[in-house]
Amino acid sequence: MEIKPIGKVIKQSAEESVLEIEPAHTEGLCGIETGDRLQVLYWMHKLREGNRQTLKVHPRGDRSRPLKGVFGLRSPMRPNPIGVSDVRVTRLMENRVFVSGLDALDGSPIIDIKGGAR
Amino acid sequence: MEIKPIGKVIKQSAEESVLEIEPAHTEGLCGIETGDRLQVLYWMHKLREGNRQTLKVHPRGDRSRPLKGVFGLRSPMRPNPIGVSDVRVTRLMENRVFVSGLDALDGSPIIDIKGGAR
Repeated sequence: MEIKPIGKVIKQSAEESVLEIEPAHTEGLCGIETGDRLQVLYWMHKLREGNRQTLKVHPRGDRSRPLKGVFGLRSPMRPNPIGVSDVRVTRLMENRVFVSGLDALDGSPIIDIKGGAR
Repeated sequence: MEIKPIGKVIKQSAEESVLEIEPAHTEGLCGIETGDRLQVLYWMHKLREGNRQTLKVHPRGDRSRPLKGVFGLRSPMRPNPIGVSDVRVTRLMENRVFVSGLDALDGSPIIDIKGGAR
């Protein structure tokens, strides 16, 4: 199953990021407004291929806690390195959506944006 | 970016589904318990390639409502047909996680499971 980026994350500060959407996909933003809550899917591009083999980790990297399966956690280690973050729209400028609350590194390819986040 | 299924959805009833995880990935379920809330990412395998080109739709298919961009909606139409559903674990049996609340068709490939859903 092949996925293609629709844009990329530009980190502005600890709190604010920009979802920069490719011109070919900008039409998909139509109707989004400041204050909306969105769910962002992104590719965790800094992980190495080996991180996709890890199925158990210490929660939050705390070695005093017993190993747990990654499917019950939000650890970045997982077979398909897709992150999901709920964000709030702070501002819109053409193909750029400014959001707060995005837990993605600068340059992360964006895979999808959905409405109706918490 | 290439993603590989970790298992597939088996629909039991309108409310209950089974996440059947491949033996190679079962270790990733370790620590999941009945009552846990999980976030499931799945491939919307029944969509046609053309559905990946659609960037505006009538919300909920209601033609009386104006067209809106898919990135502000939860329509299945989108460039990367990945669904995200929050579910509750009702029962576990080896590599099968029984859940309620999964909005996926029977046979959908499962891409990821994460903890900490609403």
